[in-house]
Amino acid sequence: MSTGRLETFADGVFAIAATLLILNVTVPRPGNGNLAHELGTHWPSYVAYAVSFLTIGIMWVNHHFVLTQIGRADRAFLFLNIFLLLCVAFVPFPTRLLAEALRTPDARAAAVAYGVTMTTTAVFFNALWLYAISRGGHLIDERVDRSIVASITRSFRPGVPSYAFATAVAFVSAWASAALYAAIALFYVLTGTLSPRDA
Amino acid sequence: MSTGRLETFADGVFAIAATLLILNVTVPRPGNGNLAHELGTHWPSYVAYAVSFLTIGIMWVNHHFVLTQIGRADRAFLFLNIFLLLCVAFVPFPTRLLAEALRTPDARAAAVAYGVTMTTTAVFFNALWLYAISRGGHLIDERVDRSIVASITRSFRPGVPSYAFATAVAFVSAWASAALYAAIALFYVLTGTLSPRDA
Amino acid sequence: MSTGRLETFADGVFAIAATLLILNVTVPRPGNGNLAHELGTHWPSYVAYAVSFLTIGIMWVNHHFVLTQIGRADRAFLFLNIFLLLCVAFVPFPTRLLAEALRTPDARAAAVAYGVTMTTTAVFFNALWLYAISRGGHLIDERVDRSIVASITRSFRPGVPSYAFATAVAFVSAWASAALYAAIALFYVLTGTLSPRDA
Amino acid sequence: MSTGRLETFADGVFAIAATLLILNVTVPRPGNGNLAHELGTHWPSYVAYAVSFLTIGIMWVNHHFVLTQIGRADRAFLFLNIFLLLCVAFVPFPTRLLAEALRTPDARAAAVAYGVTMTTTAVFFNALWLYAISRGGHLIDERVDRSIVASITRSFRPGVPSYAFATAVAFVSAWASAALYAAIALFYVLTGTLSPRDA
Repeated sequence: MSTGRLETFADGVFAIAATLLILNVTVPRPGNGNLAHELGTHWPSYVAYAVSFLTIGIMWVNHHFVLTQIGRADRAFLFLNIFLLLCVAFVPFPTRLLAEALRTPDARAAAVAYGVTMTTTAVFFNALWLYAISRGGHLIDERVDRSIVASITRSFRPGVPSYAFATAVAFVSAWASAALYAAIALFYVLTGTLSPRDA
Repeated sequence: MSTGRLETFADGVFAIAATLLILNVTVPRPGNGNLAHELGTHWPSYVAYAVSFLTIGIMWVNHHFVLTQIGRADRAFLFLNIFLLLCVAFVPFPTRLLAEALRTPDARAAAVAYGVTMTTTAVFFNALWLYAISRGGHLIDERVDRSIVASITRSFRPGVPSYAFATAVAFVSAWASAALYAAIALFYVLTGTLSPRDA
Repeated sequence: MSTGRLETFADGVFAIAATLLILNVTVPRPGNGNLAHELGTHWPSYVAYAVSFLTIGIMWVNHHFVLTQIGRADRAFLFLNIFLLLCVAFVPFPTRLLAEALRTPDARAAAVAYGVTMTTTAVFFNALWLYAISRGGHLIDERVDRSIVASITRSFRPGVPSYAFATAVAFVSAWASAALYAAIALFYVLTGTLSPRDA
Repeated sequence: MSTGRLETFADGVFAIAATLLILNVTVPRPGNGNLAHELGTHWPSYVAYAVSFLTIGIMWVNHHFVLTQIGRADRAFLFLNIFLLLCVAFVPFPTRLLAEALRTPDARAAAVAYGVTMTTTAVFFNALWLYAISRGGHLIDERVDRSIVASITRSFRPGVPSYAFATAVAFVSAWASAALYAAIALFYVLTGTLSPRDA
């Protein structure tokens, strides 16, 4: 089975999950004449929207780069992908939760929920790649350079521990945890650790 | 008519229906300081989300595998597909219903609604395939091996009776019925009865 | 400009508009023990969902068939398409309105709103085709048979008057009007007037 | 990296953002017998829907035209695209705000929010193009005519100042500002300044 159709389905889920995030940004009821102020108080919604959109965008870029190295897909690979997409499509839920709870006594629970979602997503992303390169790289395209495979494997390492650490930080400070989620997204945007600079 | 555009439209509906499921997971209003507890009480929402996402994912894999065998599409095939997609796009409705009703006196009605949707979907999936292979397989690509056609036909058999049975079980126990829906999804994930293991 | 990207965008809008229809089917709040009865009372929602899904599905089939005849697109053709898609994406709005209003004193206004949307959509669909075949068919692919062009033109004729008539009927009876909308959808499904039977 | 997958993701986000706009058109609760009147009072919702749909449609046409000139993408180009899509997917939020606030004392704040979104989107669109043509057009396909590049650059100029001006006008009159947003969309539909007439 070629990976073409898989990419189409994955592209759809990534694009829809990212675009649906906007439905979770609270639209204030206008009419009282203090909309400008109210819009200002909802800033965690906008930041949460931007961070989750970027995170899904980065995952899409990386998912696409991973699939480029894949020569053939088997059923297990397909279902690992569906589990990964199940996690990606779940992201709007904890995003809204964190945005609404950040300034309430529920901030910690919401930050943990966000982190657990992201850590689980990172785990499936790793599982997908580790499965593809297992048994001597049985799903990797023969024409792919071994050094690229090694560099992807290396770049996957920080994902799970970073999100797990940020989740643990939530038990000390939900704000610090939320800042770390944003920092992880920015780090990936700026450094592009996964794929080579000009890939 | 080639099946390329049909696949694009179908991919879109499968991906959107699966991703929309998250909009039906109840987001608790945070602020009371017991969000962790509240998140816990909504576990049927998460399970229902996961089961329906997997089910749609499996149907997408199988739909794609079926279309691979199709050499040409006629108008009847096209409209059977639209009826199938109409059912798939309906899945978020009974999913939410079942998640919200499972621990109320309405559990039975919700489990029946879920089962009727899934059984109807399976009926259209069967109709689609039976139509394609009718009249000596008039829509099947000539290069397709007869044994693959026979194996798909065989693998389609349990779908309708399984869902019909799980639906009937709802009249005895909604919980048992819901467990069966999850079991059917897991069964398909684990055994991959439809397509050969490494297809 | 080739029509490939246009089809991708159009496929997306058709698939999303059809799949979003489910968000407008009222989910009853379960818990009172009479969910089965309540589900029954919402039947206009299910019928409206099915009719609009089929209608969008048929429009997608026909839109795809029309684009198959197009050899090149210019900017006017592109924007006629965007106006057509603007109408298609609007369909969930009057669908919900009609489903909720059909058994209230507002049935007539809702049936008119549905009909105006459908008539406008049909007008843009006609405009798109008439523009493509204008000036000696300047956008039509040279390899396309003149008889196919003539048959498409013929098959487009009933669309606008049918919907305009069904809209006018709403002033006499909203139910008759709603039945006509369903009949038009079924008529297109069964007869497939636009494209040849086996296209 | 070729731009094919990027276009698929972008097409998805454009199509979904445009189609989601309908979810923000207020559906009046029918039943009082004055639905026709109520539908009339919501006209700003319909106009806002149409203007934003057209604006996203135009951006999609232009984005597609820009990508046609691109020979290769690097990581920075990819992330500029994700930031642009983040803005496009945000459009439903200020669209709803403006539609609901236009006839309230909050009209100004809503018109500014709409304008800031559009101006930011235009800034990223410009950044994307300016980056592509920087360093002697390092991302531009070699086969692309220099005069087309110059004409695109020229056509990009009015975008940011137009939206910035319309945003500033909101401080004098929200209605004039809203009219300017509609006028900018219509201007692009009618003149098609970006791409040559028959491209």
